[in-house]
Amino acid sequence: MADAATIEAPARRVRGRPARREGGAKALGVPYIVRGIPTYDVLSEENLQKIERAADRILAEVGIEFRDDPAAIDHWKRAGAKVEGLLVRFEPGMLREIVSSAPAEFTQHARNPANNVEIGGNKVVFSPAYGSPFVMDLDKGRRYGTLEDFRNFIKLAQSSPWLHHSGGTICEPVDIPVNKRHLDMVYSHIKYSDRAFMGSITAEERAEDSIDMARILFGADFVDKNCVILGNVNVNSPLVWDGTMTKSLRAYARANQAAVIVPFILGGAMGPVTNAGAIAQSFAETLAGCALTQLERKGAPVIFGNFLSSMSLRSGSPTFGTPEPAIGSMVVGQLARRLKLPLRCAGNFSNSKLPDGQAMQEGLMSMLSAVHCGANFILHSAGFLDGLLSMSYEKFVMDADLCGALHSYLAGVTVDDNTLAMDAFLQVGPGSHFLGCDHTMRNYQTAFWDSALSDNEPFEKWSEEGGSTDMATRANRQWKKTLAEYQAPLLDAAIDEALCDYMDRKKAAMADAWY
Amino acid sequence: MADAATIEAPARRVRGRPARREGGAKALGVPYIVRGIPTYDVLSEENLQKIERAADRILAEVGIEFRDDPAAIDHWKRAGAKVEGLLVRFEPGMLREIVSSAPAEFTQHARNPANNVEIGGNKVVFSPAYGSPFVMDLDKGRRYGTLEDFRNFIKLAQSSPWLHHSGGTICEPVDIPVNKRHLDMVYSHIKYSDRAFMGSITAEERAEDSIDMARILFGADFVDKNCVILGNVNVNSPLVWDGTMTKSLRAYARANQAAVIVPFILGGAMGPVTNAGAIAQSFAETLAGCALTQLERKGAPVIFGNFLSSMSLRSGSPTFGTPEPAIGSMVVGQLARRLKLPLRCAGNFSNSKLPDGQAMQEGLMSMLSAVHCGANFILHSAGFLDGLLSMSYEKFVMDADLCGALHSYLAGVTVDDNTLAMDAFLQVGPGSHFLGCDHTMRNYQTAFWDSALSDNEPFEKWSEEGGSTDMATRANRQWKKTLAEYQAPLLDAAIDEALCDYMDRKKAAMADAWY
Repeated sequence: MADAATIEAPARRVRGRPARREGGAKALGVPYIVRGIPTYDVLSEENLQKIERAADRILAEVGIEFRDDPAAIDHWKRAGAKVEGLLVRFEPGMLREIVSSAPAEFTQHARNPANNVEIGGNKVVFSPAYGSPFVMDLDKGRRYGTLEDFRNFIKLAQSSPWLHHSGGTICEPVDIPVNKRHLDMVYSHIKYSDRAFMGSITAEERAEDSIDMARILFGADFVDKNCVILGNVNVNSPLVWDGTMTKSLRAYARANQAAVIVPFILGGAMGPVTNAGAIAQSFAETLAGCALTQLERKGAPVIFGNFLSSMSLRSGSPTFGTPEPAIGSMVVGQLARRLKLPLRCAGNFSNSKLPDGQAMQEGLMSMLSAVHCGANFILHSAGFLDGLLSMSYEKFVMDADLCGALHSYLAGVTVDDNTLAMDAFLQVGPGSHFLGCDHTMRNYQTAFWDSALSDNEPFEKWSEEGGSTDMATRANRQWKKTLAEYQAPLLDAAIDEALCDYMDRKKAAMADAWY
Repeated sequence: MADAATIEAPARRVRGRPARREGGAKALGVPYIVRGIPTYDVLSEENLQKIERAADRILAEVGIEFRDDPAAIDHWKRAGAKVEGLLVRFEPGMLREIVSSAPAEFTQHARNPANNVEIGGNKVVFSPAYGSPFVMDLDKGRRYGTLEDFRNFIKLAQSSPWLHHSGGTICEPVDIPVNKRHLDMVYSHIKYSDRAFMGSITAEERAEDSIDMARILFGADFVDKNCVILGNVNVNSPLVWDGTMTKSLRAYARANQAAVIVPFILGGAMGPVTNAGAIAQSFAETLAGCALTQLERKGAPVIFGNFLSSMSLRSGSPTFGTPEPAIGSMVVGQLARRLKLPLRCAGNFSNSKLPDGQAMQEGLMSMLSAVHCGANFILHSAGFLDGLLSMSYEKFVMDADLCGALHSYLAGVTVDDNTLAMDAFLQVGPGSHFLGCDHTMRNYQTAFWDSALSDNEPFEKWSEEGGSTDMATRANRQWKKTLAEYQAPLLDAAIDEALCDYMDRKKAAMADAWY
């Protein structure tokens, strides 16, 4: 376990941009968080080794299928894996050796350099949720997402000082043809946000389009030497990598951009129903994906990803924000640190269909597991409801507010002469109060997180002046206010034009495809 | 930090009573939890020592006032403290030496021995919230609590397999005179629950009445040798112990019963606005209280308690479920373990006035801090809303359900041949599924926590068949159903009569007092 004493001081400072304040004290936005608390390590060395040995056996005895990607198979043959048709088996230690060339930490550049994020080590980056076909709000309920929704969520993310990244497929813009929407998504991230973002992975050419657009923004030389875009690729668990994913993975690696390698294991369906086995499986699947990036381009950045989930045994539905994945994620974190790879793990998940108590209980249970397990890039930090199928406008701003609280949480407890406050005790003494003492006056502005959405008024004031609102109602008002006040960050007109021209040409060359 | 490998296996077994099932798998009630995960230790040894030295300086240089209790002052004089009037100062190390006679772990007996709880070590006991003057539910809103409400909450607690203790002043029964209600409260705990409980501390004679009623139930000899009742006493922070509290504290210790010693520090008011100083202060205050129990009766059980809270700097209101107290509680846990005393710390707190998203987010943030910090007795595990002023019927059952989830969370990740599931990987192989495999069939019933209140149905089923309910609505239905189905545990008729006779005599001897 990392010792708190060896960790850098909390990142309350603002780097390279003016402090943004919202909701009161401690509201300083930072481009990313530097942990002030250690990770929560729940498993002993002996048990970690047992899981690693199980993963080794899965890789050596069962193997992984790589479908529809002969170039991936060729990589494995050259690397010395045992290949039989599509099935690839790996000697223990082989994949660990291959991934050792990947960086333990890297910078993802944003078009506003003040928003560059560090991914790895003791850094934490919060990114919006990803991939829902539906959106919902309290006024209009649930419906398919559109490009307007997609842009709205980018604007909400960009407006929050507590998110650090613009994300990727924040929701599916289903009003745009499937084969063209990646262009609109990447363009919208660039246009409406000046933070780092993610590209498409749903086809190799869409991954390459995404990277090409990043080249227009950053310059081709810069992109070849620096990470400017992430691609989130999924294993087809159990133990299958589909060609669509490995081709996209290789496209990102080839361009020196970071693939995020993520199994999706619903325990009892795509993996064993017990946590230890599911962790061993996902470790094996992710390790193989990470290694493939290094075979494509040695030294390319890559993120070790993980996603555990559980199942309702009454209905067979996936469940989220439950205790087993939360505690299992801590073990995943321990294993990823032994590989010295940046980690993406867990996030803010809920099965609730409303921004209610269930939503926030499940969301916080899984989000805290991400924070505790040492995840460096927390995809799905804000917005999910409905078992990952819907992005909720209210939940998005509630989660972003929670991300603010987690800035203070991750800062930990600072111990020095000022915080120990001996001068205050000597000044105040027994039986008095600290309200006006020098120490309080000196520190109160940065002492406590102050939520913009929680109601802390006395009951009478809440019911008489506050209209007896619940948190969801206050969130509904806030996202509308934020969208109304949103201002787009400036984008160089020549770059904007070049991006639009690229999109137009690509779109003109394709017939619309809707599935 | 305790290593998971050195910790006992998870306590999923049932001791001495039949398994109670509710809501599906993993629903095995246990009399208390044995941790399967280590505590979360966030501060380095160096910084822990700085806080201990600051507490030593507070005790030696500022001191603590003991008001209206000459016997307490006499204890301190005999123990060698520096006494000037009411102000008592302590040499470094003196109080640590005194508390070393208190047990690191003890059993609190319940009238049903199957419900005895172990307090200390790696055990965790969940107890209902304590002390609200108001109650609320979705039908009738907020009103003063009555004896009927008090009994209802005892019945709800007794009916939950996820709470282990009956608690104390679950709500104030304000329809009973202040000077008599302790009798009804203790009687109600004994009558409507067969779990361990807490007595009164609002006056020395009420503490003694509470203990006398426990003597009727357990026998005087048994009570002298065993802990059967707890009393929760508060410091009048900063640095004042009032006589009402120390006299009650001494009454419990004298009878070999366990006092729970708890400062209430609202940062910026009753203590410094910075966490490190507030922790040092509360450590000093609690240490003095714990030591006083040992001066009253060496070897008496005592619980090291703590309660940190923060403040809204816009309104001056106390805030709950915020990040600073959550992370500060982890430090308190580290300090308490160095004293080898059982710990009570944090709980489920919220400032929300409704069982909404704010309520569950704040509640889980503070409840998880209790679980992570190694609290052994978690008072306030269920029911609080409204900044501790109201007990909510809906929140109570929502929190009790959450306590169920925390049973699975605290069990951690079991690593053995079965959970590593190598047989399943060899049977299923790549690209298939685990739904019907032998390993799944063998393990699915105990694999995942299954909430009774979370909705995990697909959106369409939730909206069409489920009535589009939120969690609060489902909780409203559940507490009514639980109360309707409640059955009182059998109580020996002679004991019942003796308790009623004791109450009648005590009440007859007093005029009603209403404040």
